[in-house]
Amino acid sequence: MGENVQVPGFLFSSMSAGIKKGDEKDLCLIYSETPAAAAGFFTRNRVKAAPVVLSKKRVRKGTAQAIVVNSGCANACTGDEGLSNARRLCRLIAEPLGIQEEMVLICSTGVIGAQLPIESLERKVPELVPLLNLDGLKGASEAIMTTDTRPKWCCEKGMIEGKEITVAGMAKGSGMICPDMATMLCFLLTDATIGAPDLQEAVLYGLNNSFHAISIDGDTSTNDTLIAMANGRASHRPLNRVHPDWEKFNALIQGVMKTLAIELVRDGEGASKFIEIQVKGAKRERDARKLALTVANSPLVKTALFGEEVNWGRIMAALGRAGPRFNPSTLGIWFNGVQVVEKGMGMGAEMEQTALQELRGNDLLILIDLNGGSESFSFYTSDLTYDYVKINASYKS
Amino acid sequence: MGENVQVPGFLFSSMSAGIKKGDEKDLCLIYSETPAAAAGFFTRNRVKAAPVVLSKKRVRKGTAQAIVVNSGCANACTGDEGLSNARRLCRLIAEPLGIQEEMVLICSTGVIGAQLPIESLERKVPELVPLLNLDGLKGASEAIMTTDTRPKWCCEKGMIEGKEITVAGMAKGSGMICPDMATMLCFLLTDATIGAPDLQEAVLYGLNNSFHAISIDGDTSTNDTLIAMANGRASHRPLNRVHPDWEKFNALIQGVMKTLAIELVRDGEGASKFIEIQVKGAKRERDARKLALTVANSPLVKTALFGEEVNWGRIMAALGRAGPRFNPSTLGIWFNGVQVVEKGMGMGAEMEQTALQELRGNDLLILIDLNGGSESFSFYTSDLTYDYVKINASYKS
Repeated sequence: MGENVQVPGFLFSSMSAGIKKGDEKDLCLIYSETPAAAAGFFTRNRVKAAPVVLSKKRVRKGTAQAIVVNSGCANACTGDEGLSNARRLCRLIAEPLGIQEEMVLICSTGVIGAQLPIESLERKVPELVPLLNLDGLKGASEAIMTTDTRPKWCCEKGMIEGKEITVAGMAKGSGMICPDMATMLCFLLTDATIGAPDLQEAVLYGLNNSFHAISIDGDTSTNDTLIAMANGRASHRPLNRVHPDWEKFNALIQGVMKTLAIELVRDGEGASKFIEIQVKGAKRERDARKLALTVANSPLVKTALFGEEVNWGRIMAALGRAGPRFNPSTLGIWFNGVQVVEKGMGMGAEMEQTALQELRGNDLLILIDLNGGSESFSFYTSDLTYDYVKINASYKS
Repeated sequence: MGENVQVPGFLFSSMSAGIKKGDEKDLCLIYSETPAAAAGFFTRNRVKAAPVVLSKKRVRKGTAQAIVVNSGCANACTGDEGLSNARRLCRLIAEPLGIQEEMVLICSTGVIGAQLPIESLERKVPELVPLLNLDGLKGASEAIMTTDTRPKWCCEKGMIEGKEITVAGMAKGSGMICPDMATMLCFLLTDATIGAPDLQEAVLYGLNNSFHAISIDGDTSTNDTLIAMANGRASHRPLNRVHPDWEKFNALIQGVMKTLAIELVRDGEGASKFIEIQVKGAKRERDARKLALTVANSPLVKTALFGEEVNWGRIMAALGRAGPRFNPSTLGIWFNGVQVVEKGMGMGAEMEQTALQELRGNDLLILIDLNGGSESFSFYTSDLTYDYVKINASYKS
């Protein structure tokens, strides 16, 4: 993460619009000076918030120019009124920008079930436009926070056809984090030249090992959205599968996504540890993924890690209920390189003592080798703490 | 639960054998004076403890005479040594009882990965035999506890062909509780006359709405076992599908199972509330079950209930990620009869205030009506509290 978080052609603004209590920022605008190629990924939850319904439809045409985002209210389970409010906010942004209403996308995050305070937003939203500036990304990343304890942004540069391009991103979410998009908002912005279908492909490819590989509590939300916009300011030949720098661009955008995804886990609700669950030696990648996910989501594993106990038995039990077949008697488990299980059995108290030292740090890699194939998958998660319960037992109040 | 917990022909004994720290009971014996019809149900976890492997094989012949149970050590992930130890304990019981070794079943519960303290058990196990007595069921139910805060037993009487029969049961388990058997041990004992296949059928029928309809944390274990024994002392004609009292017997055994299952949830690790999640108006029962299960297992729903927040949005979000199709805009939600959601939208602050009063009690029924069919399913669960984290963050130490 460098300090320069400008992306040529993109402007940002943010403010407190009174949706959250107090003076916290809760509204922001992302604007591309020219129409940009756009790709969107949305929650697979059957209960979809109004902004998801609207943005999903609008992004399908592959072009967009602005994203308005509010925190403090999810505008979910709000019926026709919620959808009408979302449309109204987009219109209020489009007018002073002088662009078509359909070029404005919208995202919301916060409590489910409440309507947006539309009257006060009607006054506030247009004020975002004169505030737009090149340096506003960090400020905007603050306005999308809910239970996050810190803003999450990332900016990387790379070379395409010898020209410098920038990929920047911001994300929010620290609970309800689970594969398939969770309560997560992420915006990726680049001045690269790329068509919408190719942008979609690059982001989709990156999702598998970033936002689809993290889990905090297994819950997913009604509002998850990832939107990528590419405005082509770098004016190289359009990136696609046959472009010589295609892989380079993919690595760049994936790097930004993975950094943001890991930031989400590190800021997981109440998290005291960052944990990578790596399953290797599987027959199929999807088996490795299912096994790693089940361990990562197990409340018993997560509380044991919080309590700094080398309770590998709970890892074995979680693996056993995950579904994919494996042979317990060929399985090994390592904590940061210290082996605690060999051929499905414990290595004894001495090794567990050594592993305990590793467990006392903030970062832990739990490696599970099935010794049954050559496929692997890494999942990123956090521990389950008193603070997770505290934060979620008093969210609305 | 009456006070009389004798089952004609069954004897019980229990003791402290030094597996657990301190003087707590950790070993018990259940003995039928005559060979009994036996049925067993075991964990579906791919990682199976040694006693599960052994008992599963032995119960297949449909007859058994004794069950030896220890707590404090699961004898799971213990390899050949674990299996050999389990066999040895059965032999040590069979000899003084003068029965065949294969007539002895064995169950263990506790920490995974440790071997049984076999030398001290070799001395202690035979001592169980002279202690056998008709009134020992309650004492035995104490010896199978792990994190349980109280023993769980139940005894019901009924009439078959005008003769009184007894069905008694004991169970343990308060964490790792999840459908498909969880870390749960349950023993059902009856003097009814019934063949093993019919006993199996009656128990299987009862499981769906008892032990397969409860969930505390979604984790399942390596050791779960339910064993039913019927010794035929009541000497009526054998019960089966064509016996006029078949349904009566089924209702009786299901009643005992449901009582024990609900006791497990009420004693859930750290639980402060007992919660029934009832989904009705589904097209298929299995859809209702999946939806109820997902809500029951959602950490966000469970922490909100602990915090006494009427956060129905989290219920909507959990339903949406469960899988089965439903129409959010026809859905209603009630807290103990107080409606908080109608047609997928909130009923407003006043109704939420009324619902909040209900939420402050210890018992809560959350009714979710999909209005899309006539099938329903009830799941029983508990809230997620600081104490759950505390108990599970320091289990081994």
